[in-house]
Amino acid sequence: MKQPHIVIIGAGFAGMSAARTFRRHDVRVTLIDRNNYYTFQPLLYQVATALLEADDVARSVRASLRGQRNARFLQADVSGVDHDSKEVLLADGSRVAFDWLINCAGSRYNHFGVPGVPEHAFFLKTLTEAVNLRSHILSCFERASRDGAAAPPGLLEFVIVGGGPTGVELAGSLVELFGRVLPKDFPEVDTGAVRVHLVEAQDSILTAYPPRLRCYAANVLKKRGVQLHLDTQLAAVTAEGARTADGQQLASRTIVWAAGIRASSLAPAMDSPLGRGQRLELNADLSLPERPWAFAAGDIAGQLGDEGPAHPQVGQVAIQQGRFAARQILARLGRGRVRPEFRYSDRGNMAIIGRNAAIAELSPRLGGLRLTGFPGFIAWLFIHLLYLPGHRNRFGALVNWAIHYFTFDRHARLITEMVPGKGDCENRN
Amino acid sequence: MKQPHIVIIGAGFAGMSAARTFRRHDVRVTLIDRNNYYTFQPLLYQVATALLEADDVARSVRASLRGQRNARFLQADVSGVDHDSKEVLLADGSRVAFDWLINCAGSRYNHFGVPGVPEHAFFLKTLTEAVNLRSHILSCFERASRDGAAAPPGLLEFVIVGGGPTGVELAGSLVELFGRVLPKDFPEVDTGAVRVHLVEAQDSILTAYPPRLRCYAANVLKKRGVQLHLDTQLAAVTAEGARTADGQQLASRTIVWAAGIRASSLAPAMDSPLGRGQRLELNADLSLPERPWAFAAGDIAGQLGDEGPAHPQVGQVAIQQGRFAARQILARLGRGRVRPEFRYSDRGNMAIIGRNAAIAELSPRLGGLRLTGFPGFIAWLFIHLLYLPGHRNRFGALVNWAIHYFTFDRHARLITEMVPGKGDCENRN
Repeated sequence: MKQPHIVIIGAGFAGMSAARTFRRHDVRVTLIDRNNYYTFQPLLYQVATALLEADDVARSVRASLRGQRNARFLQADVSGVDHDSKEVLLADGSRVAFDWLINCAGSRYNHFGVPGVPEHAFFLKTLTEAVNLRSHILSCFERASRDGAAAPPGLLEFVIVGGGPTGVELAGSLVELFGRVLPKDFPEVDTGAVRVHLVEAQDSILTAYPPRLRCYAANVLKKRGVQLHLDTQLAAVTAEGARTADGQQLASRTIVWAAGIRASSLAPAMDSPLGRGQRLELNADLSLPERPWAFAAGDIAGQLGDEGPAHPQVGQVAIQQGRFAARQILARLGRGRVRPEFRYSDRGNMAIIGRNAAIAELSPRLGGLRLTGFPGFIAWLFIHLLYLPGHRNRFGALVNWAIHYFTFDRHARLITEMVPGKGDCENRN
Repeated sequence: MKQPHIVIIGAGFAGMSAARTFRRHDVRVTLIDRNNYYTFQPLLYQVATALLEADDVARSVRASLRGQRNARFLQADVSGVDHDSKEVLLADGSRVAFDWLINCAGSRYNHFGVPGVPEHAFFLKTLTEAVNLRSHILSCFERASRDGAAAPPGLLEFVIVGGGPTGVELAGSLVELFGRVLPKDFPEVDTGAVRVHLVEAQDSILTAYPPRLRCYAANVLKKRGVQLHLDTQLAAVTAEGARTADGQQLASRTIVWAAGIRASSLAPAMDSPLGRGQRLELNADLSLPERPWAFAAGDIAGQLGDEGPAHPQVGQVAIQQGRFAARQILARLGRGRVRPEFRYSDRGNMAIIGRNAAIAELSPRLGGLRLTGFPGFIAWLFIHLLYLPGHRNRFGALVNWAIHYFTFDRHARLITEMVPGKGDCENRN
């Protein structure tokens, strides 16, 4: 019998997890991604704030697949799927035939129609965007040093849009960079005039957390100097700043958009019903309606079954869904059994606000423990070291964290040349 | 009395060395560079071959100057010097007044009029160029994996032009990458078909070394699979390869130009006589003729006095000249004495060909010891760890070298998005 060929689109948490599940099974796996590395997205904000190096949060896909003989990697841009011929279409015009498909193409940022966001905001979804944001932030300080009193307004005002985990963690890391690291680099710049704004449309940050933890996080951020703007919606972003829906102007050269995501453009390309945030509506077993050979997992996967929930777009869900989709395919090939519907096993959530301050919540099933402060910080460190891919990355991150913790230094504060279209500081400064 | 203001152009070996020499003296120093980091150029080829990470060979200038209160850093592009008003001109139109000037603007590649080099060749003078070359090399293998037999000719042929230390070290590191690291990543690619060509116009590589060491190096390269083309000049470089002066065609998508350098464009901007390679002709004390307030040091500095030698354009000379120029200025300010003419104290030279194989030559003054093989390799490691700037860089490089030495792995094999104009793989592959 011919070996079944499984094609996985996207080498993120879901795609890597799916690929690994096929290890030691008699199938052929092709994993396709536009990059030759996968990114530990939850730590990109630390690259943007010079705490981690780009190489700490990215790992070669081929390095991760080295031990797996039945898997092949293909660096290519996927443009669509032809379900009739069962082929994945690549941007260069070629095609990859499959017997089974798992779409793990992930998500992109959602600008929610706010004018100016695509042209003027910074993002934190890709490694290039994180490195460009780091270069831009440091360039603002170089310009403040160069221009002195002639510097343009808002040069040292930094606006983060979105009070979810990314926005909160970025705000916390930025105030530490500005308060502890850069004053030693820029004694000639009045770092007391630097401002970090966190803008959130709802009446609280971190709405996924229980009130006590939210409240702790908001208090720590405020105490450390972050200006919280709750109940505040943005009406527009320009090269000079942001305008809120109630007419307030925030002068800034750095608007970071962390307000939300929507599914990858490969969701509509699947020719299948879409739900909220353009996510694919799936059967309870993660397969596409009427396409029993096609599955989806991770950020691109939406509501399950008629009433099933849409799970949060986080790494834990993606890892579990990738594994589940792979097991479904194996079960249909007569290799092993799996329950008919995906169930998310939530272990808990955590977010770091800064030095010695994090919040962590174990799921009720695991005891419902809630941590803040130093215990939360230690729990956060431990979990992130555990989940970072590859020993070399773990070691690199640990060294950089330790140096920062004990010396308040951040090594990676280089301004590298910008990849255009991802925040070009020369046009903005 | 007003504090004398010394402006140093360029934060390379010469500029950093000059700036540090003013530490603890009652002067004001302004160090100007277009980048906010300085680069350990001798190791850029290891970034291009995925052995070191970009952050290992670059260090923030401000981090290095933190302990020095009288020094200030300015990130800016210098466009020229006005000797009448004693001002440095910046590209943004502003000016920086000086009392004393040290021009350490360095060098750029020299294409020697070979057509096609600026458009089609890769270079190793800047960090961006090194990272782009790494991405390009890895992209060639990804394309070979994708296209199989349909891959264009020369996709896995790599041509290095210039048999000096950079070319030799790059060739040695490339054959190790291709022979030991990438076969495990690309089992589907016939890595036996990969070729590394080293093209040299003279009849020997490493002409600065004694014959026995040259011969050793050439034998090691040949044994490890590098194809040496001696007595070979290039007539043209195109997108498809290189043509030699005697009509031979080398199909290749990767021509790395390591054939020579010329002085920075800030040499002609000094309005002063130029010598070979556009280097500034200087008085024996490194000052410019008829401009007693202006000095030059490093790659930009040429012949000294009427008959004095032009020193090799290497880091050792730059460090010594930078320090000497600073001491000349201090002596003229009545602070310390210094001999009237610069003398280069040559300690020796070394180049690494690969694992357990390097050549090192101590100067006759220091005993004239010559090392090859493993002792040379250990000497090379020791010296480079000593001279790398900053503990964090030393530690990072040591870890990456150790991992590579013991596991044949290279962590930094990421294909990152290209900065245009520095080798855009999409247009070439």
